[in-house]
Amino acid sequence: MKIVTEKIKLKTTGNPDLINITEKVSEILTRSQLKNGIATVFVVGSTAAITTFEFEPGLIKDVQDLLEKLISEKGSYAHDLTWNDANGFSHLRAMLLGPSLVVPFEEGRLLLGTWQQVVLAEFDCRSRSRTIVVQLIGIS
Amino acid sequence: MKIVTEKIKLKTTGNPDLINITEKVSEILTRSQLKNGIATVFVVGSTAAITTFEFEPGLIKDVQDLLEKLISEKGSYAHDLTWNDANGFSHLRAMLLGPSLVVPFEEGRLLLGTWQQVVLAEFDCRSRSRTIVVQLIGIS
Amino acid sequence: MKIVTEKIKLKTTGNPDLINITEKVSEILTRSQLKNGIATVFVVGSTAAITTFEFEPGLIKDVQDLLEKLISEKGSYAHDLTWNDANGFSHLRAMLLGPSLVVPFEEGRLLLGTWQQVVLAEFDCRSRSRTIVVQLIGIS
Repeated sequence: MKIVTEKIKLKTTGNPDLINITEKVSEILTRSQLKNGIATVFVVGSTAAITTFEFEPGLIKDVQDLLEKLISEKGSYAHDLTWNDANGFSHLRAMLLGPSLVVPFEEGRLLLGTWQQVVLAEFDCRSRSRTIVVQLIGIS
Repeated sequence: MKIVTEKIKLKTTGNPDLINITEKVSEILTRSQLKNGIATVFVVGSTAAITTFEFEPGLIKDVQDLLEKLISEKGSYAHDLTWNDANGFSHLRAMLLGPSLVVPFEEGRLLLGTWQQVVLAEFDCRSRSRTIVVQLIGIS
Repeated sequence: MKIVTEKIKLKTTGNPDLINITEKVSEILTRSQLKNGIATVFVVGSTAAITTFEFEPGLIKDVQDLLEKLISEKGSYAHDLTWNDANGFSHLRAMLLGPSLVVPFEEGRLLLGTWQQVVLAEFDCRSRSRTIVVQLIGIS
């Protein structure tokens, strides 16, 4: 059994910025030469999330509309008063979707569905430098 | 340390179809003879989710009502125009609840609460053949 | 590779009770002397959740307001009729946020962001004795 910890570094634009990172996670798995195990994908920070969905323009719009309906960017948030900031909605969206995703792999391949992509969701209201930890535990 | 990867294959009816898979996950754990570790339960596909709740008719109804309130089946979704499909709401519900669940186990038993069941939530608008990956990492 | 399973025992007040457990999880990691791996944090029970957010009074209020908006404590739930109980909303909130969180660690340190705290969210309508399982898999 082996552990491999790698990091994906990305520059995001402000909210909304949804970035398909499936390929990057797969490349890390291929390089590791591990065959069976789990991949943990974790975004460092409290205003972004890791999620999965079919990455096509229609659904990207639907995801943004849903988040705007549930947690509006124009809403009034106590957090914004604490720091004289404007990203209360970003924190709430990140909390709702969560920072981590665990995907099993077998024969060196992530067991994702055909349309099931791994997505970094940047919710902060400004451009950020993001670190996504990809940690593999498995056997080769 | 050992890894065991098994699959549960299920035929679902269309949305909403909530299926209690706790027993099946427990059986895989028992067969594996592993004592301590983590179980990752992951549904392949982008219109279903893995979640946990007390599996009783009242709460099953409440879960369906909540999802209908947050992401209505009758809503209008850009995804449906992309593919001339009708499962935009299914994708959004699946994204909200997520495809994976990680449960620790000890002495060969999942550390779930008495009323805390593992549930496959089928959100697609038609019957599907589902594969749920159950991957155990642990020691015997 | 080693597995360490420890438990945090907490007495909560009723809903809403949001408790920052980051320090306790970190202490378990330090005691384990593990250097690289994943920490699974899992709450036993179906009316509480594990989540992450910046633990400051403004955002704590925002989180509570959001949950009240999405799943009102004063709503009418079929679950409450089943058991003549009043925690239908607690079950739904717990399902929405989920019982588990997986955080990678490196050089003996959880890879959390500066403001990214691990939080136990008690949603039950009464005081509860909670068990949170912290399970580490890693190498020293």
